[in-house]
Amino acid sequence: MTESTARKTERSEKEHKAHVLTLPLADTRVDREPHTYERWLVTKLMNMAGSPSVRFRLWNGDVIEPQHHEASFTLHLKDPKALYSLVANPNLAFGDLYAAGRLDVEGDLPDLMETLYRAVHAAREKWPRWLDALWKNHNPRSTGIAEAKENIHHHYDLGNEFYQLWLDQAEMQYTCAYYEEPELTLEQAQLAKLEHVCRKLRLRPGMTVVEAGCGWGGLARYMARNYGVKVHSYNISREQLAYARQESKRQGLDKLITYVEDDYRNIDGQYDAFVSIGMLEHVGKENYPALSELIKRSLKPDGIALLHSIGRNRPMLMNAWIEKRIFPGAYPPSIGEFMEICEHGDFSVLDVENLRLHYAQTLTHWMERFEANRDTIADMYDEHFTRAWRLYLAGSIAAFRAGSLQLFQVVFTHGGNNQLPRNRRHLYTFPAAPEEA
Amino acid sequence: MTESTARKTERSEKEHKAHVLTLPLADTRVDREPHTYERWLVTKLMNMAGSPSVRFRLWNGDVIEPQHHEASFTLHLKDPKALYSLVANPNLAFGDLYAAGRLDVEGDLPDLMETLYRAVHAAREKWPRWLDALWKNHNPRSTGIAEAKENIHHHYDLGNEFYQLWLDQAEMQYTCAYYEEPELTLEQAQLAKLEHVCRKLRLRPGMTVVEAGCGWGGLARYMARNYGVKVHSYNISREQLAYARQESKRQGLDKLITYVEDDYRNIDGQYDAFVSIGMLEHVGKENYPALSELIKRSLKPDGIALLHSIGRNRPMLMNAWIEKRIFPGAYPPSIGEFMEICEHGDFSVLDVENLRLHYAQTLTHWMERFEANRDTIADMYDEHFTRAWRLYLAGSIAAFRAGSLQLFQVVFTHGGNNQLPRNRRHLYTFPAAPEEA
Repeated sequence: MTESTARKTERSEKEHKAHVLTLPLADTRVDREPHTYERWLVTKLMNMAGSPSVRFRLWNGDVIEPQHHEASFTLHLKDPKALYSLVANPNLAFGDLYAAGRLDVEGDLPDLMETLYRAVHAAREKWPRWLDALWKNHNPRSTGIAEAKENIHHHYDLGNEFYQLWLDQAEMQYTCAYYEEPELTLEQAQLAKLEHVCRKLRLRPGMTVVEAGCGWGGLARYMARNYGVKVHSYNISREQLAYARQESKRQGLDKLITYVEDDYRNIDGQYDAFVSIGMLEHVGKENYPALSELIKRSLKPDGIALLHSIGRNRPMLMNAWIEKRIFPGAYPPSIGEFMEICEHGDFSVLDVENLRLHYAQTLTHWMERFEANRDTIADMYDEHFTRAWRLYLAGSIAAFRAGSLQLFQVVFTHGGNNQLPRNRRHLYTFPAAPEEA
Repeated sequence: MTESTARKTERSEKEHKAHVLTLPLADTRVDREPHTYERWLVTKLMNMAGSPSVRFRLWNGDVIEPQHHEASFTLHLKDPKALYSLVANPNLAFGDLYAAGRLDVEGDLPDLMETLYRAVHAAREKWPRWLDALWKNHNPRSTGIAEAKENIHHHYDLGNEFYQLWLDQAEMQYTCAYYEEPELTLEQAQLAKLEHVCRKLRLRPGMTVVEAGCGWGGLARYMARNYGVKVHSYNISREQLAYARQESKRQGLDKLITYVEDDYRNIDGQYDAFVSIGMLEHVGKENYPALSELIKRSLKPDGIALLHSIGRNRPMLMNAWIEKRIFPGAYPPSIGEFMEICEHGDFSVLDVENLRLHYAQTLTHWMERFEANRDTIADMYDEHFTRAWRLYLAGSIAAFRAGSLQLFQVVFTHGGNNQLPRNRRHLYTFPAAPEEA
């Protein structure tokens, strides 16, 4: 850019800003022609986002193609105000507009989201500070005992019937499955995950296990059924616990399993294993030292702890839309942040495994079932809810594929424990997935 | 303690301090009677160290038993000044006095050291701040390019003949071996380590590998010989490189291996794998961001990096004596600290394994061979050197056994790389150790 065109651009930017500020978007007719500066805004938005292979179709049918390559996807903005919302707060507005049906997508939704994530991730390094601030994510809301209850209720008490429509039929696992082999079914991969976790914990009959955050109680039942251990499982979601208790009774496992409706912070007793699958995301960084102390006192001297959590490659706030609309209070930690739990308690980390692409595959299976039941779900809730959840599932597939989310399983024990496995071959002696499931 | 006895103790402490300060230890005769306050100092020292099962024998033969249990070891202080040195700077003086033969040990040296480490570790939590300061460890000295050369020369250029006396005969590995099975010989376990590393890197014929810090070049030769890869290996220890080059020529591998006498910071080119075994301890925390950037630019988009390093459960300085006398500049990081390398470069961690007890076993094998060659070594150097190295080996065995040191292998890749292994079964498909070695 020459100096004079730079000055011209600067001036024209100022003019545009003036337009934006003085025009109160009075003209919200959806059939009107887009203004020149509105077209300019779309181009600007695409550049900001790292020029992904995306075209825009505006409310009146006008199409704006990307500047540097062919478009693989079309974003359809259905009214002028949608454009201004998107420019003002792209991260939050994209989800809200999609859920409201004011922004639509032509092309595969997870693929589009992956394209956007990768483009933004690459562009972001060169952004000026004001733009980084514009793309802002939230600090997660509080995860104190009372608020945690609210946060969890918001997501997990949507109704068991809803989750049954698209989670696995084996153990209702709403966490990353383990596709030991690519062709596993969702059911096989979820059972393989439970088996993988049990092997990492080195369970033996008669051992005792405490579980923080048990969902619908599937891990507890798997451990009791296949390893003959006694399990205490904590959860604050009433809907989930009702299902868990009923199912454990039906399977005749209620002598081995105690489901406790209480916050994990109230765990007492000492156990051979401490396990938590998919709860750490909801714990909140400020509570890591307390969690560490809890594990410290709950774990026998030779006990093994396993935490399974969504994470990050580096510290980063949760996507604003997900945190606001889907998962209040959620924060996926980097391993560095995770280590506060281990270092605070003088624990020794034995094993970290990253199952990132397994979560992409799990979510793909969930989304297929979700889409197969879209009408039922729209009848249960409404179209807005269905679209929001579709975007959440698609965006999560994309985030795991693009590497903006990770899935960590971290195994650790007391620093002084020398009863350690010599190698990790016991995790792989025979397939973790059952042949039929 | 009542208030009056507390006051008395406080007063008597002051008196003793006065004694210590006013008495210039003029009376250094090794046959004189110990003073009452010297006996008191010994008792105080044992209490400070958490009352390990250790008795003291003083210069004149007097014995002071521990207060609360039977003694399993005897520490023999051979002159009065030794006691004062030990009290003034226990951490540093213990090693110096032992090396000088002014402190001797009756009982198994690694077992004694483990007893001391465990007792001090437990007692330390209750120490007042002044005592923690007394037990101080050093900040490691600089690891800039020039100083790094000095630091490395100090330890690694002691002479290949020296290391050949007690390292494995297979590939002269001066790092943790992998005792996949407990009965492996040192040679088998070192080859198993090399194999384990190659599997983690997923090497295939024709790939290129860069190695930062190659010791006597054994990993490079193993990779070239067994995986047909091209290796560039960097080292600043001239003695080690001379051996490495000669050996690679002898084995006809010099077409595949380039040994470079240069600092790892000068690595150039792009490779399928970046590997560093036992160098990170010498890198220095302040150089982690630069190391991260180096790996970032040296690794192809689908490349895999592996760093193998001594570490800690939580940040802690290196033992003062080891840093001062044995390993200048050494600093073993916690995983949290290690993560600065991964987070700075937006890398994705795939696998962390902790081989702590493998290092205790490796060191035990080294020490057996060292002891078998003690006279030869004393002839090559002197008695002081031999005793210092014996203590270093014994203390290291103890530190790994007691959990004050860890051994981490961390595997990571670029954040956007989706060419990932689905599981870690390939590490365990058949034994890593050769049947005969």
